[in-house]
Amino acid sequence: MARIVVKFGGTSVASVERIRQAARHVKREVDAGHEVAVVVSAMSGKTNELVGWVNEASPLHDAREYDAVVASGEQVTAGLMAIVLSEMGIQSRSFAGWQVPIRTDDAHGAARITEIDPTELDRRMTDGWVPVITGFQGVSSHGRITTLGRGGSDTSAVAVAAAVKADRCDIYTDVDGVYTTDPRIVPKAQRLTKISFEEMLEMASLGAKVLMIRSVEMAMAHKVRLLVRSTFDDPDAPQLAPDGTPGVPGTLVCDEDEIMEKQIVSGVTLAKAEAKITLRDVKDNPGVAAAIFGTLADQGIIVDMIVQNIADDGATTDITFTVPDSEYDKAIKTLQNAGDKIEYGRLSGSKGGAKVSVVGVGMRSHAGVASSMFKALADKGINIQLITTSEIKTSVLIDEQYAELAVRALHTYYGLDKKDA
Amino acid sequence: MARIVVKFGGTSVASVERIRQAARHVKREVDAGHEVAVVVSAMSGKTNELVGWVNEASPLHDAREYDAVVASGEQVTAGLMAIVLSEMGIQSRSFAGWQVPIRTDDAHGAARITEIDPTELDRRMTDGWVPVITGFQGVSSHGRITTLGRGGSDTSAVAVAAAVKADRCDIYTDVDGVYTTDPRIVPKAQRLTKISFEEMLEMASLGAKVLMIRSVEMAMAHKVRLLVRSTFDDPDAPQLAPDGTPGVPGTLVCDEDEIMEKQIVSGVTLAKAEAKITLRDVKDNPGVAAAIFGTLADQGIIVDMIVQNIADDGATTDITFTVPDSEYDKAIKTLQNAGDKIEYGRLSGSKGGAKVSVVGVGMRSHAGVASSMFKALADKGINIQLITTSEIKTSVLIDEQYAELAVRALHTYYGLDKKDA
Repeated sequence: MARIVVKFGGTSVASVERIRQAARHVKREVDAGHEVAVVVSAMSGKTNELVGWVNEASPLHDAREYDAVVASGEQVTAGLMAIVLSEMGIQSRSFAGWQVPIRTDDAHGAARITEIDPTELDRRMTDGWVPVITGFQGVSSHGRITTLGRGGSDTSAVAVAAAVKADRCDIYTDVDGVYTTDPRIVPKAQRLTKISFEEMLEMASLGAKVLMIRSVEMAMAHKVRLLVRSTFDDPDAPQLAPDGTPGVPGTLVCDEDEIMEKQIVSGVTLAKAEAKITLRDVKDNPGVAAAIFGTLADQGIIVDMIVQNIADDGATTDITFTVPDSEYDKAIKTLQNAGDKIEYGRLSGSKGGAKVSVVGVGMRSHAGVASSMFKALADKGINIQLITTSEIKTSVLIDEQYAELAVRALHTYYGLDKKDA
Repeated sequence: MARIVVKFGGTSVASVERIRQAARHVKREVDAGHEVAVVVSAMSGKTNELVGWVNEASPLHDAREYDAVVASGEQVTAGLMAIVLSEMGIQSRSFAGWQVPIRTDDAHGAARITEIDPTELDRRMTDGWVPVITGFQGVSSHGRITTLGRGGSDTSAVAVAAAVKADRCDIYTDVDGVYTTDPRIVPKAQRLTKISFEEMLEMASLGAKVLMIRSVEMAMAHKVRLLVRSTFDDPDAPQLAPDGTPGVPGTLVCDEDEIMEKQIVSGVTLAKAEAKITLRDVKDNPGVAAAIFGTLADQGIIVDMIVQNIADDGATTDITFTVPDSEYDKAIKTLQNAGDKIEYGRLSGSKGGAKVSVVGVGMRSHAGVASSMFKALADKGINIQLITTSEIKTSVLIDEQYAELAVRALHTYYGLDKKDA
């Protein structure tokens, strides 16, 4: 017997019929003898409708009222889910964030969970009840409803799982797991049985938009094992692992220690439409990087890769970074206007880059991953414009037109292709 | 300066644009120096959508979950109203029922308000804030959300007005007041400037569906003056009483003492499609009426008029009552099948009656209202089938085809016709 928190996103609860389908997944786990709590999002589209009304009411609205309005969506789903579960013979009741309570700070619209009182949830689960909890929200110290920001239901689920000391947090979504790369680019992409928290963080931030980064960080911090699986699987079909053997479907995101046979590279990710900007002959003084990126941050421009080389003349250096293509013109203008704050010789850049990355905890113990990556790309005649590395990730910026070719080549090179495809 | 609670129903807040229009009424009162609190319903149609989902989830659902789902509608409107008011420069915040708190009993779906803590509302209003409170709901002693049943927002508004000791409770709705009779039948019907609680109760129960009966009862018990007025009036136009003089538009429902010049008859009401059923030669024993109407109540049949005459032979009596035409067949069958519980000689009846009533507190001090009513009908050749009377109301059942003729005749007879029409 395990204790499981299951979370259903907006598309999984888009209608009463979908909620019924989701509830059958819950019933299967209950029938298997597990203790289950459910966390739900708003019905897909509802949050947008509510946000639309708030903006129509006033573009400059009080964030506390935004939260009061928008949090109502999950309240609806939680009640409906509790009703459907009860009809299936499962004892269930809904909990709004303030009823648990899920306490948060006062940062309305982007609140952080500070504490979850597990007493009532724990008691219910021990007694065989299935509590259904509204995701995405909590209550502030002033008794006002807060929301956690978009996608916050994943975070709610992980926080609840940590509070009730669950063995696993199952995230039901519209994909059936985490893949070695985007299957639309590489049809031979494989679903991973397991992936470490660290790899998932690098994958998520690099564009494999399966889980909210924040929820993965929280899961890693509290050692909550996450299972990503499809809500559209037949709930009553035999449960099979990705390799076809009986087991848990989907991809388990867990501690590195739980992954016996570590791949050197677990996945290849791609982010397109990246523009590169180079500042040449930048005065190599302390604080110069802070001045450049502080100026950009003030304008709300999100910078991705940053590369700085050792100054070869000891006085000036070159700094290159990437921003989304859509932010390119704004970033150039910002730097031109900041001329006296940042001393540099020349400003250049171009749009239309693609960032390709290989991710894997195995890199830590295997030398030469970066060089083998560069060789694999060179073999296809692909020129590398920028390189950045972290402990478990190596990224390169290349011309966008070679993006898919590069991803396919690396996927094959690191042995990630499906055997039977 | 007065303290006013204003309530907006579903059609008054059906869209953000409508909410803005409603907010302008609030602003007018605030600008006039009044202290204002607002009570809102769900956007029109939203409650039906939520109820539809609940029934789709399960026809046999937990009433507590029904309440959790359905109460979300008012939460949305309250937040939007607070945003719109803030944008107009009025300090405002929303309060869900549980935040006030509005305490209720545990009768989910039809809860009764047991207590409203006025502290926070009182403090806000004194400080010049406009609190916006979700109508239709509260919180039980178990911390669960409760709803008051359909139309409960009127009751919420009156209860809040009583709690904060408001001078008036303004009910903004889609009609501009209470009329002497249905203007669709009598074009010369006049809007009343004032009507007493007792008269309003008789009018409401007789079919002038402007206010929930329960809210009028509560207003009468707590001496909360109710103003019924139209939400679609131009909020910035001069405020004129129904007689065209500067004053408060709409109809004030208040204590009888506040109405200086009492009309003998304030209104004429009509209910059509009433079927009459007569039980002849009923054994005149104690408990026989209870047996008859208990049997009907057990079947959920709502009985309207009841007439019983003194038994002329001292042993049996005749009892006649009315039910809606739609319940006629069921009522007849129920009585036929209850033959051994109720001893009677003969059962007869027919559909297609109309109940016409005259209502007025002046009846108390004026003799002969009933007889003048019968004469007015006789002058038109209308036969009276049944008569019932209360202290401030006289009702007759007539053939449905004379219904409009009777209403027009009585309206003219009692001097209620508009002078200039």
